[in-house]
Amino acid sequence: MNDTDHGRAGHPPTMRDVARAAGVSVATVSHVVNNKAGARIGDEARRRVQDAVAVLGYRPNALAKTLSQGSSRFIGLVADAIATTPFAGQIIHGAQDEAWKHGYVLLVANTEGNVAAENDAIAMMLEHQVHGILYSTWYHREIAVPEALHQADAVLVDCFAEGSGLPAVVPDEEQGGRTATEELLTSGHRRIAFLNTTTPSPAQAGRLAGYRAALDAAGVTFDQDLVFPVEPHQEGGYGATSDVLASGATAVFCHNDRVAMGLYDGLRENGRRIPDDVAVVGFDNQDVISAHLRPPLSTVALPHYELGAAGVRVLLGLEGEVGRLLVACPPVRRSSV
Amino acid sequence: MNDTDHGRAGHPPTMRDVARAAGVSVATVSHVVNNKAGARIGDEARRRVQDAVAVLGYRPNALAKTLSQGSSRFIGLVADAIATTPFAGQIIHGAQDEAWKHGYVLLVANTEGNVAAENDAIAMMLEHQVHGILYSTWYHREIAVPEALHQADAVLVDCFAEGSGLPAVVPDEEQGGRTATEELLTSGHRRIAFLNTTTPSPAQAGRLAGYRAALDAAGVTFDQDLVFPVEPHQEGGYGATSDVLASGATAVFCHNDRVAMGLYDGLRENGRRIPDDVAVVGFDNQDVISAHLRPPLSTVALPHYELGAAGVRVLLGLEGEVGRLLVACPPVRRSSV
Repeated sequence: MNDTDHGRAGHPPTMRDVARAAGVSVATVSHVVNNKAGARIGDEARRRVQDAVAVLGYRPNALAKTLSQGSSRFIGLVADAIATTPFAGQIIHGAQDEAWKHGYVLLVANTEGNVAAENDAIAMMLEHQVHGILYSTWYHREIAVPEALHQADAVLVDCFAEGSGLPAVVPDEEQGGRTATEELLTSGHRRIAFLNTTTPSPAQAGRLAGYRAALDAAGVTFDQDLVFPVEPHQEGGYGATSDVLASGATAVFCHNDRVAMGLYDGLRENGRRIPDDVAVVGFDNQDVISAHLRPPLSTVALPHYELGAAGVRVLLGLEGEVGRLLVACPPVRRSSV
Repeated sequence: MNDTDHGRAGHPPTMRDVARAAGVSVATVSHVVNNKAGARIGDEARRRVQDAVAVLGYRPNALAKTLSQGSSRFIGLVADAIATTPFAGQIIHGAQDEAWKHGYVLLVANTEGNVAAENDAIAMMLEHQVHGILYSTWYHREIAVPEALHQADAVLVDCFAEGSGLPAVVPDEEQGGRTATEELLTSGHRRIAFLNTTTPSPAQAGRLAGYRAALDAAGVTFDQDLVFPVEPHQEGGYGATSDVLASGATAVFCHNDRVAMGLYDGLRENGRRIPDDVAVVGFDNQDVISAHLRPPLSTVALPHYELGAAGVRVLLGLEGEVGRLLVACPPVRRSSV
């Protein structure tokens, strides 16, 4: 499709490019190219805009352009929880930045996990002749692929579907779990409890594998009695306090920041100081929590921005052949270790 | 524009409508209308789809349809903080639900407050001939209107611009402050501290006015010494603990849930129980915090979903002439009062 584009390779010129070239505002360009009635634009500015339009090969109507090319510069993004977590927003942010870089525009649809909304969203995107669809979930899991998704080029983001043939971009849970545990090992801890989620998921299995791998590499024997299953939210962390204290652990790797927030409350009620008495590391880097606990929580970030950006690159064929692309989860160091 | 629509008034038929009418999946409809090679569709299903297309007047190419009508069924939504707060997501959710109800599709652009991204977003939307643009901010404030926004019908959501002539949909801060204070008055409290933000804003002024109005209505004399300015996050609430305890207040209205979260820590460190020793009410209903504090926080909700939905209604002329539309902030009762 890029063969017929004007301007920078892969970047059809936009109204903003014209404004830059002509040294005028986007509003002035809009006035001139749309022959807006009542606009008072000087002859000189009008001429500069018309020159820039000619030089750049700008076509004012993006939709007419799309039709003449037979496919569109839209990329669809289906998200299941825009309204309930900031994670979906970070996926959108990353996907949009990468899409815009390559001259594409995102059509975003929020489904809140509702199947009818999901079908409506995919149908809407097909009707707009999207170049492809990113199908994203707010937590990493295996999905059943909606039938209609097979009508478009599609990439799964923060989810996967074995045997579907669809490429998937997901966080590297095992590396993340290893990184979290290494943060504690590096500070000298050897007896490290792990509050893992009770929910079977790639995060549950991967973070545990990473925890074990880090212990192995440090020559610390894995002890099943230091792994406590908890509900993956504040109440789960709080409820595990007495188990943690009884275990003699000097440090705790929490499945996520919410679990750590609950554990903080429990440790404080028992007169324990963080990190002097017990070191704590979380997972997710849910900023509104982790950056503002007392003390601020050291954690490992889920790379939602990068998942969205990588999803677009995979869709545009910029990552080569991809089965499942693992994105690294980096450490975020604050004051709890 | 609706004059030329087929199907339900104001609702152009979608691929999903065709699928429902024909009793087949959206994927099957897509196969048939796009003459997809390699698809194995039975003659009977193909005929049912073709019949439904004819009866409903469905036009498979949404873009061609848009062009033939001379304007589009897109509504643009510019948001400044999709990636950093869940609030923008709730605005998107509300706007999308209302847009879809009326046969429109949202073009969402995230700017993270970046002016270049904002200009790119508005230019992109103008190029796609949007029906109009919702310009939204993640917290209620006065804005300077980007010049390009005047090229489209626009509605300000969670923000306003005096003298701009643009309609605005904003939360009713004063009613919200009154509601929060009434929650405490109704429980018998008379000495109620208010941890207000140090940031000048409609929230700062409006919630204070509401606090005073509620006290007045209950016959409680306003006491300036019970109003404490704090930074509007956890650290601000924590830092105000000693002032609150010294004031003899039996209840505290916190500017937002994050302030309340910090105050919880401070009260706990001083051995005070919530709500037995001190009752606390927040503002925002930021769920990941308020629902999971110990005890769960009673608060007042910012109506972001409804702001987005009302913004679309104003844009479509369904709310009549609007200058500034105030949306109510409802109480959310948990266990801290």
